[in-house]
Amino acid sequence: MLQQLLETALRQTMNRLVRPVLTPAVPVSLQRRIVRQAYRSSTPPRGASFENTRVGGIPATSTSFGNKPHGAVLYLHGGGYIIGSSATHRGITGHLAKTSGCTIVTPDYRLAPEFPFPAALDDAEACWNGLLEEGFKPGQIAIAGDSAGGGLAIALAMQLRDKNQPLPSSVTVFSPWIDLTQEKLYAPECEPVLQASWTSKAAKLYAGQESLTNPLISPIFGDLSGLPPLLIQVGSQEILLNDAERLAEAANRHDVETCLEVYNSLWHVFQVHSGQLDRATAAMETAGEHIKRHLAD
Amino acid sequence: MLQQLLETALRQTMNRLVRPVLTPAVPVSLQRRIVRQAYRSSTPPRGASFENTRVGGIPATSTSFGNKPHGAVLYLHGGGYIIGSSATHRGITGHLAKTSGCTIVTPDYRLAPEFPFPAALDDAEACWNGLLEEGFKPGQIAIAGDSAGGGLAIALAMQLRDKNQPLPSSVTVFSPWIDLTQEKLYAPECEPVLQASWTSKAAKLYAGQESLTNPLISPIFGDLSGLPPLLIQVGSQEILLNDAERLAEAANRHDVETCLEVYNSLWHVFQVHSGQLDRATAAMETAGEHIKRHLAD
Repeated sequence: MLQQLLETALRQTMNRLVRPVLTPAVPVSLQRRIVRQAYRSSTPPRGASFENTRVGGIPATSTSFGNKPHGAVLYLHGGGYIIGSSATHRGITGHLAKTSGCTIVTPDYRLAPEFPFPAALDDAEACWNGLLEEGFKPGQIAIAGDSAGGGLAIALAMQLRDKNQPLPSSVTVFSPWIDLTQEKLYAPECEPVLQASWTSKAAKLYAGQESLTNPLISPIFGDLSGLPPLLIQVGSQEILLNDAERLAEAANRHDVETCLEVYNSLWHVFQVHSGQLDRATAAMETAGEHIKRHLAD
Repeated sequence: MLQQLLETALRQTMNRLVRPVLTPAVPVSLQRRIVRQAYRSSTPPRGASFENTRVGGIPATSTSFGNKPHGAVLYLHGGGYIIGSSATHRGITGHLAKTSGCTIVTPDYRLAPEFPFPAALDDAEACWNGLLEEGFKPGQIAIAGDSAGGGLAIALAMQLRDKNQPLPSSVTVFSPWIDLTQEKLYAPECEPVLQASWTSKAAKLYAGQESLTNPLISPIFGDLSGLPPLLIQVGSQEILLNDAERLAEAANRHDVETCLEVYNSLWHVFQVHSGQLDRATAAMETAGEHIKRHLAD
């Protein structure tokens, strides 16, 4: 009962404080500042520690929980490729460090509009290569991400495959943004976070001169064959529900091992509420299990 | 890689040995005998123990793992209401005992055609009441089931709610059969277990004189309001995929806390392969976590 009240309160908070900011009417610089403040309420678990670092030349935050990480997760934060940072996502990365038992490396990839595609992808790949240089074997690294970072995680895996590079051990995505054309958006009764006008604008800023159907921008238009085991989590109250289902179907068609989890009545990247909302904590535990299960010994 | 070969081998085994038996052309008594043999390959984990018992007057198997169960699961086995028993499902109940930390009580409810609706539901309810008489509080009992047993689990929860009885702590269903009219069956490219001709026949045998749209026979036609948190697991290679999605949507519409998990390329009640197929073991761990999380202290 308390949890249900909390769920309602958090939904209202998102709806009143986050959603109104994520609109083309608010300058991107102001969006960045407000979201940085707002996401302070997404708190990591006690015992998580954070270190500013550089990996492969890219500024990043390294998140640890406990002393003996048995692998690394390259975590790509969301924010429509135009906002967000490794700082805004400390709640998520702290909980994921706890449930996966891994060090979470979150690069501050370059953002649009200052740096359109392929800057984010280039930085993600540089960070991946940096982890290899630090001595991690590909099988000891998972890739994960939320929203735009979820799409970027899949784009990175596709790019590594196309270059015949070794692949990560698994991919985990929360509410992934995989179709920037937005032609098949879902219409939920309630959408406490995302406005399609904002994501449309962000899509244009990120794509720049490139087509929105470029598979490295919108992975749903690409070939997923050969990708490692994929976990997709999505809420039923978000415009990206349908896209998550399409991603699962595409992965199935391309023989990628996939599990799609749909959490009713939750919203875009509800995992930010891990540690507060039991269902978010549970989702993060499932994500951690997925990562652990596929790590090489 | 080994796991992928195993998945392929298990799919072929189901397709060649189980599917051909589950047809109206084979007498029900023979189906029962063959399935009893076939499911011996679904083995419980080492350390699981089984006891023949009676609960609420219903013959049942009690499955334990370890010494300190912290609750009970009333587990309703599948088999189209016409075949299957607590013996055929020892693999599933053994693994669920391990992952949930609960005693699993599996009633041998009466089967059709000898005993049509509401015999199975009456027996499930008698077993539920028996658990209460044994001293379990409702919040210490979860309900779970596969296939027909999944539909029965939901029907039981609805019936308890309608009688203003206390409800179980959670409901967990694997490939639930919730629409016996079969009007919206999915058409997967591959379906290694179920033939619609068999489920159609089983539906008629179970419903007897009752309408297939009776919500206690086909819960999708009922009101799910007030039901406890629901976990639904389904494979993408089964005719019941669509029905699982419809159940999740109905639960959402009725404000029931729900998570739907779709496992690509797996089949009807793939959880029977727990302990062999890693993905089945993982699904069973998620189910156990769901049950544990909602048990009262």
